[in-house]
Amino acid sequence: MVSDSGLSLHGVIPPLVTPLDERGEVDRRSLERLVACQLDAGVDGVFVGGSSGEVALLDTAQRRAVVEVTVGAVAGAVPVLAGAVDTGTRRVIEHARQAAELGADAVVVTAPFYVKPHPAEIVAHFRHVHAAVDVPVVAYDIPSAVCARLTPDIVVELAESKDVVALKDSSGDLATFREILRRTGLPALSGSELLADTAVRLGAAGLVPGLGNVDPHGYVRLYRAARDGDAAAAAAEQDRLARLFEIVSVADLGRIGFTAGALGAFKAAMALRGIIDCPATNQPLAPLSPSETETIAEILAAEGLGKL
Amino acid sequence: MVSDSGLSLHGVIPPLVTPLDERGEVDRRSLERLVACQLDAGVDGVFVGGSSGEVALLDTAQRRAVVEVTVGAVAGAVPVLAGAVDTGTRRVIEHARQAAELGADAVVVTAPFYVKPHPAEIVAHFRHVHAAVDVPVVAYDIPSAVCARLTPDIVVELAESKDVVALKDSSGDLATFREILRRTGLPALSGSELLADTAVRLGAAGLVPGLGNVDPHGYVRLYRAARDGDAAAAAAEQDRLARLFEIVSVADLGRIGFTAGALGAFKAAMALRGIIDCPATNQPLAPLSPSETETIAEILAAEGLGKL
Amino acid sequence: MVSDSGLSLHGVIPPLVTPLDERGEVDRRSLERLVACQLDAGVDGVFVGGSSGEVALLDTAQRRAVVEVTVGAVAGAVPVLAGAVDTGTRRVIEHARQAAELGADAVVVTAPFYVKPHPAEIVAHFRHVHAAVDVPVVAYDIPSAVCARLTPDIVVELAESKDVVALKDSSGDLATFREILRRTGLPALSGSELLADTAVRLGAAGLVPGLGNVDPHGYVRLYRAARDGDAAAAAAEQDRLARLFEIVSVADLGRIGFTAGALGAFKAAMALRGIIDCPATNQPLAPLSPSETETIAEILAAEGLGKL
Amino acid sequence: MVSDSGLSLHGVIPPLVTPLDERGEVDRRSLERLVACQLDAGVDGVFVGGSSGEVALLDTAQRRAVVEVTVGAVAGAVPVLAGAVDTGTRRVIEHARQAAELGADAVVVTAPFYVKPHPAEIVAHFRHVHAAVDVPVVAYDIPSAVCARLTPDIVVELAESKDVVALKDSSGDLATFREILRRTGLPALSGSELLADTAVRLGAAGLVPGLGNVDPHGYVRLYRAARDGDAAAAAAEQDRLARLFEIVSVADLGRIGFTAGALGAFKAAMALRGIIDCPATNQPLAPLSPSETETIAEILAAEGLGKL
Repeated sequence: MVSDSGLSLHGVIPPLVTPLDERGEVDRRSLERLVACQLDAGVDGVFVGGSSGEVALLDTAQRRAVVEVTVGAVAGAVPVLAGAVDTGTRRVIEHARQAAELGADAVVVTAPFYVKPHPAEIVAHFRHVHAAVDVPVVAYDIPSAVCARLTPDIVVELAESKDVVALKDSSGDLATFREILRRTGLPALSGSELLADTAVRLGAAGLVPGLGNVDPHGYVRLYRAARDGDAAAAAAEQDRLARLFEIVSVADLGRIGFTAGALGAFKAAMALRGIIDCPATNQPLAPLSPSETETIAEILAAEGLGKL
Repeated sequence: MVSDSGLSLHGVIPPLVTPLDERGEVDRRSLERLVACQLDAGVDGVFVGGSSGEVALLDTAQRRAVVEVTVGAVAGAVPVLAGAVDTGTRRVIEHARQAAELGADAVVVTAPFYVKPHPAEIVAHFRHVHAAVDVPVVAYDIPSAVCARLTPDIVVELAESKDVVALKDSSGDLATFREILRRTGLPALSGSELLADTAVRLGAAGLVPGLGNVDPHGYVRLYRAARDGDAAAAAAEQDRLARLFEIVSVADLGRIGFTAGALGAFKAAMALRGIIDCPATNQPLAPLSPSETETIAEILAAEGLGKL
Repeated sequence: MVSDSGLSLHGVIPPLVTPLDERGEVDRRSLERLVACQLDAGVDGVFVGGSSGEVALLDTAQRRAVVEVTVGAVAGAVPVLAGAVDTGTRRVIEHARQAAELGADAVVVTAPFYVKPHPAEIVAHFRHVHAAVDVPVVAYDIPSAVCARLTPDIVVELAESKDVVALKDSSGDLATFREILRRTGLPALSGSELLADTAVRLGAAGLVPGLGNVDPHGYVRLYRAARDGDAAAAAAEQDRLARLFEIVSVADLGRIGFTAGALGAFKAAMALRGIIDCPATNQPLAPLSPSETETIAEILAAEGLGKL
Repeated sequence: MVSDSGLSLHGVIPPLVTPLDERGEVDRRSLERLVACQLDAGVDGVFVGGSSGEVALLDTAQRRAVVEVTVGAVAGAVPVLAGAVDTGTRRVIEHARQAAELGADAVVVTAPFYVKPHPAEIVAHFRHVHAAVDVPVVAYDIPSAVCARLTPDIVVELAESKDVVALKDSSGDLATFREILRRTGLPALSGSELLADTAVRLGAAGLVPGLGNVDPHGYVRLYRAARDGDAAAAAAEQDRLARLFEIVSVADLGRIGFTAGALGAFKAAMALRGIIDCPATNQPLAPLSPSETETIAEILAAEGLGKL
């Protein structure tokens, strides 16, 4: 699907983690290796600075480095989407302009948060951002993080006004995802790890699975099978990936937060596979314990995922 | 109450709005006038870049301008607290360092948000911030905005480790506020507009009422009466301020968000009183309607609040 | 799918509304007509006393009448499921025993509510109910009403212990629905009006759509097409039903609650189609306005749904 | 304060637990002993069948027994309030009529739940209940259990129409409690264990503290001191009771629910003091562990609360 902007958003577009070194700085070589691994697996785009990329925890230098390194490593092979996620319109515009200057092909924007906006204010937010930046805007529905929904009515309005060129849906609500597909021609990307084949079958233009950091080949196979109508192959791949996804439930939530446990699991698995050097996450997220990392290694082994 | 840092946080410390001009830029002259009006009323400190200051909607230049102008206008007369409110530790440290360089006397920090932290990660967040900045840190409990509580256990731990020097409580939960007073010696500031006299009676060191932007003299009278044990005078003042606080319920929530309605009401009332020039709020907050502004004018008139 | 109990739960099992007369009493003749209409459409079971049946609003006599009339009207043609929905274990057992005595083939039970149970207490609840009643128990996941989830871990535990024979899922969370299908052999019924074809494709044993009160023929066609692998026919039927489902969004939520608006829409449409005599709902639900009913008539007409 | 109904609701009116025997039946002798203990301590009323009385877990026979035994044991000495707590209007009316027939002096009614009512439907609920029963109705605001608020606007409307004669506030929101006191003359009872002295000072007619089951003498002293203007004595008593209230935080919430932990703590403490025979709670609430009970015994000892 090619939007009016000429940007084609489809296929597998993983939300890349932000590799850090032991000191907490962006590990540029690991990020380059991650990009190479993704391109090698056949992804159709990459998304940096999203929730999986710890966008809420990156400082100004880290945000810049992430986009810069990724744009360089991708070198035009596929579109680069960059998160411009922040609480308010002016702040989002600052991030979006920087990402555009650094070469991102589109920016990904959530509803405002902290300020409890009215739906009409959410629409206005996207309008102002679109008017202020030179790259296309992708709407990002992630109510678990921002405590507000991009309802179908909001998305339809933004699609009709062409203020956004696509939707990234991380709501977990497949009924409204389908409603949006029914009511608009907007390319819609599903953030679901577990309903990826179903989303494609229902008409999703593409997939943005965090677990794609760990097993991009799996999601590329799944996407292609689903797109080509081989439902059985897609479902079998999905079942395998569902078992792999159990790595995000390994951490003891009596000790660390859900976000820390999930992102820590992705990074631990990637380090075990040799994709990145170090599984560190940004402050204040707590690290996994050695035994949790061991359990993740066992899950990888059970699913036959070795060194890349 | 003087903390180990030598900073004395007590009395009325209003969370200043951020006056904007018609173009949406910080209106420095209105901000100076606001500061002068507050000092004239006898406040004991000012807090900029808080929720009432639209912190989530300010871009980098606005954040800087707000602290810079305020520090200049206050000129050492009272402490200046600056919000360093953001989703993650590194980002908070960036804001906090800038505020400290610009002359703020303390920074005010919430729990991380967007990332759904574990209580232990919230504690770690404050520890890292405290270790990284040269000014004292005030813990800011505002669950309605950040979707997480600073529980008494968290606050007690931070008080004992001296990572924070005070608490600003905007939880609306007076029982836990009282528990914290009982369990720590931490100076605790109440953000309640409606239980200000009660909070002082229970041992609050001070008050941070958003409505203090509109009627600082009222809160100064209330605080002093409550502090001096004149409960009847404090309660009478509180009742008057409760009627005035009805301005935040004027806006039609079918049209604009709660935050827009409340902050718009503060600014409309301030413009009507001549404290600031223009009632504009930052994008994407919707403005009040003319008839809503008229209703606010009527409430001001009924409570005898004219031009300052 | 036949459970160990010998009960076969599969296919379309609509959650019947409770027809009331003008005085608010159960309208037995309308209920008999509704059952006849459902059987005529080819449903595979009926479920009375669920959320669509206003279970939370029925008094003792109404609860009894609903099961009694339905069991009589169904006359063994298909299984009759009866809601035994209440806040606590003993109360649920009272309802379940009465339903069993009146001839219900299974009872449908939610998590306890009002009391904020721990997951282990939810499991214990189902165990106690199962031990106390002579008919099979169906677990009912409806977090929007009871503010608690039947997590996959809970359902897996109950499936393994054979304390429940099936799951009715009204969570809207298709990822966990699929996880339960993957981890258990439990027959799972989807309460989704809008993802019915998808649910069957993923392995749902059956469908429990509230909208099936209004258009049972549509859901029977959808179910059979999906079950038989005719995905295009199922999707086309689903799209039509999605347009019809817009009747639940007609009511003005500034005036009446969501439940009143949705159940009122079902009943208004049924009255327009001649299935029941009177669209009344139980106190305290507010009625639809005449113009809202007119809009519903227009939607029915647009979808070609006339008198039955 | 005497309402139009002639009923005087003021002072300490503890929400009695429902003592059970080892088999889970109402332990009539323990309930009589509890009532005697309360009257001996000087309470001004008792409230049975509230949240502390496990109302959501009582079956029909238990509900009846609780009111019957209590009315008999009180023998007219003080008013008996009975909870008529249920999801819908007709069900509440059933409970309320039974309570009235058994001699309760008033019934205590929450907002409807499970059905997500509109505020206007909440008002209608109380109107219908009031019209249908012969005893006065007390409005019960407990959003943590019913997921809906009795907003000040709702309470003001019900006070003006005389559909309710008092408010029992368990919202934890002292600002709205105070608003209701300011806007109505309705007797308002606070359910707060920890802000009891403050509530009386702000104008509460009385107190309904669950902890009053364990230490009625303490709350009677607190109430009388607060009522008589001896703020220091009231605050000292409140501080002592706050330490005692830590018994509700003893249970391990990784194992049992909050409700089970709190009610189990009340009952364990009462059994230790000899007020009731057995600390059992209704299914499906999990019991405290022996070591948790031991901790509760230590807290009682530390506060000097021995056998009664």
